[in-house]
Amino acid sequence: MHPLPPPPTCAFASDNAAGAHPLVMDALLKANSGHALAYGSDTWTAETEARFRDLFGPTADTFLVWNGTGANVMALATLVQPADCVVCSEWAHIAVDETGAPERALGAKILTLPSTDGKIRPEQLEHLRHLIGVPHHAQPGVVSITQSTELGCVYTAAEVAAICETAHSMDMRVHLDGARIANATAALGGDLAALRSFTVDAGVDVVSFGGTKAGLAFGEAVVYLNPDLARRAKYVRKQVNQLPSKMRFVAAQFNALLEDDLWITLAQHSNAMGRRLYDATSDIAGVTHLGPPDVNSVFPVLPRDVIAPLQEWCFYWDWDVSRSQVRWMTAWDTTEDDVDRFAAGVRAAVI
Amino acid sequence: MHPLPPPPTCAFASDNAAGAHPLVMDALLKANSGHALAYGSDTWTAETEARFRDLFGPTADTFLVWNGTGANVMALATLVQPADCVVCSEWAHIAVDETGAPERALGAKILTLPSTDGKIRPEQLEHLRHLIGVPHHAQPGVVSITQSTELGCVYTAAEVAAICETAHSMDMRVHLDGARIANATAALGGDLAALRSFTVDAGVDVVSFGGTKAGLAFGEAVVYLNPDLARRAKYVRKQVNQLPSKMRFVAAQFNALLEDDLWITLAQHSNAMGRRLYDATSDIAGVTHLGPPDVNSVFPVLPRDVIAPLQEWCFYWDWDVSRSQVRWMTAWDTTEDDVDRFAAGVRAAVI
Amino acid sequence: MHPLPPPPTCAFASDNAAGAHPLVMDALLKANSGHALAYGSDTWTAETEARFRDLFGPTADTFLVWNGTGANVMALATLVQPADCVVCSEWAHIAVDETGAPERALGAKILTLPSTDGKIRPEQLEHLRHLIGVPHHAQPGVVSITQSTELGCVYTAAEVAAICETAHSMDMRVHLDGARIANATAALGGDLAALRSFTVDAGVDVVSFGGTKAGLAFGEAVVYLNPDLARRAKYVRKQVNQLPSKMRFVAAQFNALLEDDLWITLAQHSNAMGRRLYDATSDIAGVTHLGPPDVNSVFPVLPRDVIAPLQEWCFYWDWDVSRSQVRWMTAWDTTEDDVDRFAAGVRAAVI
Amino acid sequence: MHPLPPPPTCAFASDNAAGAHPLVMDALLKANSGHALAYGSDTWTAETEARFRDLFGPTADTFLVWNGTGANVMALATLVQPADCVVCSEWAHIAVDETGAPERALGAKILTLPSTDGKIRPEQLEHLRHLIGVPHHAQPGVVSITQSTELGCVYTAAEVAAICETAHSMDMRVHLDGARIANATAALGGDLAALRSFTVDAGVDVVSFGGTKAGLAFGEAVVYLNPDLARRAKYVRKQVNQLPSKMRFVAAQFNALLEDDLWITLAQHSNAMGRRLYDATSDIAGVTHLGPPDVNSVFPVLPRDVIAPLQEWCFYWDWDVSRSQVRWMTAWDTTEDDVDRFAAGVRAAVI
Repeated sequence: MHPLPPPPTCAFASDNAAGAHPLVMDALLKANSGHALAYGSDTWTAETEARFRDLFGPTADTFLVWNGTGANVMALATLVQPADCVVCSEWAHIAVDETGAPERALGAKILTLPSTDGKIRPEQLEHLRHLIGVPHHAQPGVVSITQSTELGCVYTAAEVAAICETAHSMDMRVHLDGARIANATAALGGDLAALRSFTVDAGVDVVSFGGTKAGLAFGEAVVYLNPDLARRAKYVRKQVNQLPSKMRFVAAQFNALLEDDLWITLAQHSNAMGRRLYDATSDIAGVTHLGPPDVNSVFPVLPRDVIAPLQEWCFYWDWDVSRSQVRWMTAWDTTEDDVDRFAAGVRAAVI
Repeated sequence: MHPLPPPPTCAFASDNAAGAHPLVMDALLKANSGHALAYGSDTWTAETEARFRDLFGPTADTFLVWNGTGANVMALATLVQPADCVVCSEWAHIAVDETGAPERALGAKILTLPSTDGKIRPEQLEHLRHLIGVPHHAQPGVVSITQSTELGCVYTAAEVAAICETAHSMDMRVHLDGARIANATAALGGDLAALRSFTVDAGVDVVSFGGTKAGLAFGEAVVYLNPDLARRAKYVRKQVNQLPSKMRFVAAQFNALLEDDLWITLAQHSNAMGRRLYDATSDIAGVTHLGPPDVNSVFPVLPRDVIAPLQEWCFYWDWDVSRSQVRWMTAWDTTEDDVDRFAAGVRAAVI
Repeated sequence: MHPLPPPPTCAFASDNAAGAHPLVMDALLKANSGHALAYGSDTWTAETEARFRDLFGPTADTFLVWNGTGANVMALATLVQPADCVVCSEWAHIAVDETGAPERALGAKILTLPSTDGKIRPEQLEHLRHLIGVPHHAQPGVVSITQSTELGCVYTAAEVAAICETAHSMDMRVHLDGARIANATAALGGDLAALRSFTVDAGVDVVSFGGTKAGLAFGEAVVYLNPDLARRAKYVRKQVNQLPSKMRFVAAQFNALLEDDLWITLAQHSNAMGRRLYDATSDIAGVTHLGPPDVNSVFPVLPRDVIAPLQEWCFYWDWDVSRSQVRWMTAWDTTEDDVDRFAAGVRAAVI
Repeated sequence: MHPLPPPPTCAFASDNAAGAHPLVMDALLKANSGHALAYGSDTWTAETEARFRDLFGPTADTFLVWNGTGANVMALATLVQPADCVVCSEWAHIAVDETGAPERALGAKILTLPSTDGKIRPEQLEHLRHLIGVPHHAQPGVVSITQSTELGCVYTAAEVAAICETAHSMDMRVHLDGARIANATAALGGDLAALRSFTVDAGVDVVSFGGTKAGLAFGEAVVYLNPDLARRAKYVRKQVNQLPSKMRFVAAQFNALLEDDLWITLAQHSNAMGRRLYDATSDIAGVTHLGPPDVNSVFPVLPRDVIAPLQEWCFYWDWDVSRSQVRWMTAWDTTEDDVDRFAAGVRAAVI
């Protein structure tokens, strides 16, 4: 292992280790002027709701919330019926990384399906059809897909549409966990048509629209594309602890993020940095990649003994310790210089 | 009804209609520098935890969260045992204003006790002693008191101590909902000794320490004065959707608010404005007060026909429509001029 | 206090201290013949379902369950929507005597209304109308009334109809806890028309139809008079632990109980014994009755010092210790001789 | 396919399709004499509790309940701490066949481990050790094993002991779902020592002791071998709808079943019939067995076209339709003649 060069200025730990974009922070600051009625009865929130209707169509119904787990739990809590289960990939954030929050709030089973890339397939839903109508089994009521997935992969619009079609034919509702919906939108074309292709056009019912990882200080949105399902949403948001009182401070951030497609621009950059990192390390002997990344994360296998020294030099997370697999993740503020320095460090360490 | 004068610049709706204090906002802005590990592994959060140990003693264990309902739910979720109920006043925020969030998250009964001022008395707990050991009744496991109460009253330190003593003798844990703990601290002396007198010295186990109403943009803290009860707190916080990922943005605000007792200074001002409002309106025929306020809210009874015009002129909330009772609430940023203008408007309307 | 005469052969503790009627036990025994498919796919259960359609009309949908708390929880679990609360009297079994089972299974608030006789009034529901649509409050979704009430009173058919009308106008569903529906039916006329008058004709949506206290060894039925609400019932029954596997042993008992109106005959007897007990003790100085009983329980106030000796002689339960009030309850098998002996004992003790 | 012979008198659907043993039914009948205090304050229940102490040792604490799902839910509800998950095999009844009852009652995640025989291994628990202490993951708090398993296999005492040792080293509690504990006891030696070897001696904390499938009309017992864990049991039993009011009717049945080891004798017979069925069909070409059964069920693969005709002739359940696998299960009352007739029918059908 060669001596390591000076580390990058930012880590490759996660996109939630980044701060907020300056325009977002500026909007937050400007919203701090005088009194405004709490709980969303303010002009900032009205603007945000209008912006989401611009994104998803005139009947989209938007509810601002605090965080990603909260967005997911709120969305699911409005979708499950008594004795339903929620079906998702075995890698789904709701199944693996939320400390059982859905089970606690919903009292419902989370039924996981095997997956290698975080995506599920319509055939896997089909295999659950035999559960329908049998009183001894939780009923498949909701399918939750993550876009982009926890493993950095992106569903095509056609793949999402196929899942929605199968789910709806089984009388299931479809939730999309879009903690990184910006990255997926960027990967699939980077415009409004791209966003719509895998959401409202594909038949998704409800979206958790991620803000935090896209460049906010905090804040997410639950957007009902099927507004009939929003009937209890305003009560459920409060009931699952997700109603911000000074809501203007969430709304103002979103207004800045959604202005001039800033959210897409930032995600395009983040994705590009992910690809740059892949390109800059794929020729290093000892670094094994799965393939080029769809979005802003790579999951390389490294020589076991370099992992810890590199983490101390510039932090990132282990992924699967048993296989010496790690996760490197870029963010909206990762620079080319950060990537190049990081790649240089990896090269020095591995050799 | 005389013509109304120009309205105040801020409403009297609620202390959560105010924005954030400039020093708080400044700290939030400054925290937006580069990357920081998520979920509290950052220096801002470490500082906040230290500041709370300064307030409550070296074993206090602090968990930053999003909002008041979340703080309460998280605290209670770590305190209830299977088949417990949570005992509180019939006016308690957890019983009345949280859309059943505690019942949903805890699966536990909220047992309310009658009260005219939002306080409960030790004798009322004593009356529940016969439930203990009877398998047909939820077991009194936690008592939750609100300081200052939802009706603007303040428990003395001795009153809290008496409740704690009775509760502990019944093997119950004591939670203090301190959404307005700053106002109570200001009312009871306005220094650290005052804070400690009705919390750690009185025997309270866990505090929901309010930030939002005290001058933050958002953010609350769950502080375990009895650290044994915090054993599951870090998991439960995530499980009830209350773990901020970019936690530095909560912590930085608290660091500014706790610096130089800013939180107490702001609450003293807010309380003084409440008293000024009472003084300026108590001689108006047709305005019936319950008595001078302990903190920052008054609940006058008004002539029925002036309520709506005054609300349109400068908003405040109805309290008990059947009795023509309303709530006027001041905030950290209410000015003497706001109060005087508001009182003048009331006087003009009522005459 | 005079020497007490020989005690009655049965206590006055509760109607669930009685055993099962011989015809019921005989039916249970006869059902024990060979194999029958589990979970209700048997001829006994089909017969029971048909018998309940005879009682309540051709669309009534019946689900046999284990016990009263289970019947209530199952019924409510199919009726509540997310963020609903269940409204009932402060004396309701679901609120007071079920150890928080509804809150645990439903995750929903139980909102209690003051009452002196266990009944609630339509005006009390009207007072909750202001909660509708406010996101900070659990939404009134279900009203649960108990017939006959926990305090031994009976709603008239008109009273039930008025509650249903108000509830439905507020988009609430109506549950009737009929743990003692037999006693109420007996009190209101003792025939099918009486039963229908305060249930299906009055607009009740779902009934917990009591079997245990009416003469079974065990077993209750949840009967959906509004079959649309039964859509998830077969799943929810299993989910709340109320699906008997060898269901024929519940069904066979019900078939015996419902044959030739045995359930009404037994309740008429039990009610008559309640009245006989009242008549035989109402002239005893020191025994203060509230008035003649509607059904099979009286709640007299006794001299404090005779309560314990009498309980030791022939057991009954305290009701309100602070007022020296007790509960005497008759059952389907209480004899005239039991009542007369008991009254003689009371007379001897009090004098 | 040859013409089928006359069918057996009993089906091979399930051991819960059988009725109750005559001695059990006789005891139930005899318990129907006069009044007895409800909820277990009766002599029959005291006797049952003593009998279970005879089985498991003097500190065993027993709670009678209605049914198997209820027993499991009650046991788990007393074992989970906030944010815990329950770990079990992917075939576990609690995970697959209880309609999400555990998730609903516990608000906790059920984490399933892959298995081919329904057993889990200590190494699988070891693999969960990395979850401990991580706030984003539900904490492994309880392991639930099924003995005999849902796939008809039996853990050796050493296997159970190894699981308990690993679980306890991870600070987990161990639950044993013994819906068919009688069959396992019979398979492992058929005496008290056998029972103890895989329960109290192996370190199991709590047992769901099955009665229904062992020969009762209904009734199960939750037995705390670690009595410290029973602290909240009497409240939780009521809270999860599992407290029988006329409890003598459960207790009396158990007293008969436990008398003279009747439960073991019946299970020995049932197991022997399972083996006889295996022996009588293992040479039939077209019937593929996994191997000789440990207990009272076999899971053969049959030619697809004979399954339905045979089910119509003498009912049994499909197991895995995709593989033409079915389940044949014997019961305490299956006769040699039943088995021989059934095997003859299978032979006739397959040929």
